[in-house]
Amino acid sequence: MNSIDGRLSKLREILQKNKCDAFVNFSAVENRYFSGFTGSTSCLVIGTFGNLIFTDFRYEEQVYTEVRNFSIRIVSKNLEEEVIAFLKDSRLKKLAIISEKTNLRFYERLKSEDFEIYRVDDDISSMRMIKDNNEISLIKKACEITYTSLEKALGIVREGISEREIAGYIEYQFKLNGAEAIGFDTIVLFGAKSSLPHGKPSDNKLKPGDVILIDCGCVYKGYHSDITRTFVFGAIPGVWFENIYQITKEAQSNALKFLKDDVSCKEIDYEARRCIAKRGFGMFFGHGLGHGVGLEIHELPRLNKDSNSNLKSGVVVTIEPGIYLPGKGGVRIEDTVVITEEGCEILTNFEKNLIVLD
Amino acid sequence: MNSIDGRLSKLREILQKNKCDAFVNFSAVENRYFSGFTGSTSCLVIGTFGNLIFTDFRYEEQVYTEVRNFSIRIVSKNLEEEVIAFLKDSRLKKLAIISEKTNLRFYERLKSEDFEIYRVDDDISSMRMIKDNNEISLIKKACEITYTSLEKALGIVREGISEREIAGYIEYQFKLNGAEAIGFDTIVLFGAKSSLPHGKPSDNKLKPGDVILIDCGCVYKGYHSDITRTFVFGAIPGVWFENIYQITKEAQSNALKFLKDDVSCKEIDYEARRCIAKRGFGMFFGHGLGHGVGLEIHELPRLNKDSNSNLKSGVVVTIEPGIYLPGKGGVRIEDTVVITEEGCEILTNFEKNLIVLD
Repeated sequence: MNSIDGRLSKLREILQKNKCDAFVNFSAVENRYFSGFTGSTSCLVIGTFGNLIFTDFRYEEQVYTEVRNFSIRIVSKNLEEEVIAFLKDSRLKKLAIISEKTNLRFYERLKSEDFEIYRVDDDISSMRMIKDNNEISLIKKACEITYTSLEKALGIVREGISEREIAGYIEYQFKLNGAEAIGFDTIVLFGAKSSLPHGKPSDNKLKPGDVILIDCGCVYKGYHSDITRTFVFGAIPGVWFENIYQITKEAQSNALKFLKDDVSCKEIDYEARRCIAKRGFGMFFGHGLGHGVGLEIHELPRLNKDSNSNLKSGVVVTIEPGIYLPGKGGVRIEDTVVITEEGCEILTNFEKNLIVLD
Repeated sequence: MNSIDGRLSKLREILQKNKCDAFVNFSAVENRYFSGFTGSTSCLVIGTFGNLIFTDFRYEEQVYTEVRNFSIRIVSKNLEEEVIAFLKDSRLKKLAIISEKTNLRFYERLKSEDFEIYRVDDDISSMRMIKDNNEISLIKKACEITYTSLEKALGIVREGISEREIAGYIEYQFKLNGAEAIGFDTIVLFGAKSSLPHGKPSDNKLKPGDVILIDCGCVYKGYHSDITRTFVFGAIPGVWFENIYQITKEAQSNALKFLKDDVSCKEIDYEARRCIAKRGFGMFFGHGLGHGVGLEIHELPRLNKDSNSNLKSGVVVTIEPGIYLPGKGGVRIEDTVVITEEGCEILTNFEKNLIVLD
């Protein structure tokens, strides 16, 4: 049984258990997960009657190539209305939807037609959270493209280069190395700007003594990667920087040590956080420790103080502590890792000792 | 009065007219439009009491730099719940939301707290549809970066290069030329694959006689551009191609001729469509003629058979007819244009006669 058949049969169990007639979904990520279709616009209707995919003219050739075991309908007018018409004609009553991915307009159309609604958000998140071997190998490949490209980009770093130029070069390398897309807008930040956890690359020019923070990732056959490394150019800007670099590195390595099947997300977050807090930088690590990675760059589970879930073997997450000193600079060290029975495997193989570029 | 002040005062008029206490919005695009904030996570609450922006730690430095005339709240736990708490404490009753951009979970939380809801979707789409001079100059700049980068990319086209390599090179040029991001994943399709209106670049290698369809655009200070050109490599693949190229070009130029203030979107779509239909290719032009472009790559208005709106001076749209012959190849010619009182200005200045690359 291939991945998609396995997912469809799990989905059918969920539908049956909750007495739903069909799963109805428009969001591209889940539609790729359940059908293999990579287009941006589609609707899946999966039920006792079979599997149906609706898309439009633009994807006519593509849907026939990509999708197996689904009946295909090419809609010519309004996708939502054609789906509603089908649901009514088929006399389906109780529909499973992902409420977080369903827009309000469609939801209210369903209500106005008296369909009963079951929210399948958690069931599907739980399914997607645990990656099968095929998914793990795709994430591995995305990570490999990413660290290879990052390595290559270090070769173009020179005085006067801009943040934007390095970011663009990394993304170009992603494509040359086989990525289908960037996973998110590459972050490259120099000097004091490195203290912005989500800053944007600008025309800022690199100067000796600058911190260089790079956070990047790509997409390979739908699956994402995510890595951050922090470098310095020419010389270490001061003892303060060496200090926060070492603390961040220890915090990251400590969190990695505790990863394994069934450990709680909150505990892992705590294991990184306490390393940073005990050295007096707790208030400068204001974000969560990490997030799930898969068909989306941010998915479940979240690793933070409020997480209630446990990790499982096969879950892929980032571990990314950081210390950000406003006006001075920041450090973040991030890996993408897959949880195993006894520990974890780091998928983003890239040096973590401080590199002074020149 | 700057752009943002103007937008806020129009929004206040809408709130007042509809007896709303506040506008509440989480979507990044509209939050950038009304506040200038470029982060991905925020909530605006704009009401009689003043302007408030909620965001989290990651954006703390950024929000203070980017946003003027808003009170700023940095949330540490759950953004949605902190907003709900504020709305309750402030005893606001009737809230304006963009229903298409509001997720179901938040919407139902609002309902459970007995807030009255007013949908402001159309009012805000109408505001955003008409671009001010500042917005038009940003779109112009995005278009200029785009056609300059496309021009440069033609220089690397050679036998054996892959679709993905050209796509990556264009996106790299975008960044080098000052773009903040790509507008969408660049489409580069060779040979018969050019008949997929939304195909994805692959490792396909370029051969003499191949069609090369390139659809690309970037983002400059939030604003998008969109252009498509179709080339051939080495030699024209046949009379059939020359034929569909000329028909597409005529259809595009005919639609452009009819553009001006107050003309109906449906009519413009028809003016392109009838050129293609009368030459017998109607069924091979299955998508709409174009779409609005601004802070989003696809926004209102839509130019298609079912459009009910009229164009206005200051609206920016694409005009992009195409003919797609399954298994053989396709042509699309697309410009981004701004509507003026008497006609339109083409912002994507790039040759439209067929270019044979070698």
